[in-house]
Amino acid sequence: MGEFDLIAKIRARASTVRRDDVIVGIGDDAALLQVPPGRQLVVTMDTLNGGVHFPVETAPADIGWKSLAVNLSDLAAMAAAPAWCTLSLSMPQDDAGWVDAFLDGFLALAAQHGIALVGGDTTRGPLSIGVTAHGFVEPERALRRDGAKAGDDVWVTGTLGDAAGALAQWRAGGAIDAALRERLDRPTPRIAIGRALRDVAHACIDVSDGLLADLGHVAMASGVGARIALDALPVSTALRAMFDDTARRMLQTSGGDDYELCFTAPPGERDAIVRSSAAHATPATHIGSIVDGSGVHAFTADDSEWTPPVTGYVHFADAARHSR
Amino acid sequence: MGEFDLIAKIRARASTVRRDDVIVGIGDDAALLQVPPGRQLVVTMDTLNGGVHFPVETAPADIGWKSLAVNLSDLAAMAAAPAWCTLSLSMPQDDAGWVDAFLDGFLALAAQHGIALVGGDTTRGPLSIGVTAHGFVEPERALRRDGAKAGDDVWVTGTLGDAAGALAQWRAGGAIDAALRERLDRPTPRIAIGRALRDVAHACIDVSDGLLADLGHVAMASGVGARIALDALPVSTALRAMFDDTARRMLQTSGGDDYELCFTAPPGERDAIVRSSAAHATPATHIGSIVDGSGVHAFTADDSEWTPPVTGYVHFADAARHSR
Repeated sequence: MGEFDLIAKIRARASTVRRDDVIVGIGDDAALLQVPPGRQLVVTMDTLNGGVHFPVETAPADIGWKSLAVNLSDLAAMAAAPAWCTLSLSMPQDDAGWVDAFLDGFLALAAQHGIALVGGDTTRGPLSIGVTAHGFVEPERALRRDGAKAGDDVWVTGTLGDAAGALAQWRAGGAIDAALRERLDRPTPRIAIGRALRDVAHACIDVSDGLLADLGHVAMASGVGARIALDALPVSTALRAMFDDTARRMLQTSGGDDYELCFTAPPGERDAIVRSSAAHATPATHIGSIVDGSGVHAFTADDSEWTPPVTGYVHFADAARHSR
Repeated sequence: MGEFDLIAKIRARASTVRRDDVIVGIGDDAALLQVPPGRQLVVTMDTLNGGVHFPVETAPADIGWKSLAVNLSDLAAMAAAPAWCTLSLSMPQDDAGWVDAFLDGFLALAAQHGIALVGGDTTRGPLSIGVTAHGFVEPERALRRDGAKAGDDVWVTGTLGDAAGALAQWRAGGAIDAALRERLDRPTPRIAIGRALRDVAHACIDVSDGLLADLGHVAMASGVGARIALDALPVSTALRAMFDDTARRMLQTSGGDDYELCFTAPPGERDAIVRSSAAHATPATHIGSIVDGSGVHAFTADDSEWTPPVTGYVHFADAARHSR
């Protein structure tokens, strides 16, 4: 199966999501698209490399899901509604079965969000998946990193640390809890609540590199500081069962791959946020506040500041190099 | 130098191209962009992998140039005006000097076409460069593959076979002619004449996989056939000097990486095409015609049909595997 056959396969399967704003999709030199009047365009591009961003033995359907999910998560963090994506797929050899399984995951998530696959390429090379995702947002309504204000609450969706917990178990070489693994392999992009937050939030980011690192980006871009209460961080039943308090705290503050939204909003919006959380079946937890100053400071229950031994996401490959 | 330092470097250097339609560029979860009223969006994504699409010893500035050029060429083939691009850069290790040299080439071409680098990512992995390019076109004016009509002339810009000639010399292990090498490493995206062609052409494609293969895509998409005159194919002085007639014919019909435009237009547009060619200092040569039927048929001066031993672009890696 050569490149043109692969493209024909992808084109046929991609037709399951149809949109009136796609004038020309896969099959020409480029896609031809119509942005609706009164909307701005939101564009993000993220690549996942085999052996770096996921273990090479990851199921192809999970790789497909995740490669789109990490990009949809960026759209969610901007409060954008998904529209179109392109896919650049590099593989060591043309493997139609692998591509079909990959598309099972990719297109299942695409269908959930009505995002059309409109172009890209397939190339020979080490396994690598590049995705560019496009969405729409109303003018002046996109959520940015630089809008946080002193006095804002800091919130986070879902639970933190689960994906990093699965990765820690994988590194340790033992069994991986199924619930944690699902969070690592099939992250949920928080599109619906992201859209709702455009009415209430001042700033937003998705947690891909770890809470402290990502909230740090918001603080730096906004020229403010942040305080978070460690005991307020939302934790899953699985993570609590599998790790002691010290390990769990590390995973929740510094583990990557959560793809939850961390956002800031004025205290007057608390009721609205709770209502949105319920309406979209997406937990949202108040974990701290934005303050004058700089940096992100984490506090224990007795109000003493806690500093993690390391901050920021350790990529899978670094973890593998360090531990195996 | 970590990922965030690399992104800061890219962000600082990317600011040399500024556009009013970029609301948020590099530095947030996604770029925020404004498509002008009355324009459609054209999107293309192409990836170049080290050792597959270019020899690993290629100068980083040339890799930077080419990774953008191949995407701009797709915009040109749609008659789009370039606007924005995103860059996904995977490297075995963070190498600030390499990135600077890469950006020298990438941003020099970006500046020529006023295209702003608005986002992307940097990741650890085998050397790979993914680019997504965005452009604008007036409604109903994009050039597609499926518009060719029987009776159309077939045209091609520039000269054919030069990049493949450089690759053939590289494969043979001898000296590579400087003019041919320039065509392999620094292809010229035919943006200006591509824009002008939206008024006159029926169909267009860029020649990336070889003339016969790419014109074959146009013929298939349009439900027509094509006849080309081998002796009419435009040839550079360097290619003529370096290869015998048989080898040259192969390179011109089946060699990849030309990034010229192949287009069809009614005979009544010949004068307009000649004027556009002169206005944009881009040679355009009438090489054949669209006919009823199917497939692409090449003819020698005595009007006998010629069939190449192989068709379609042989990727660098395949060439390397076969010959070295």
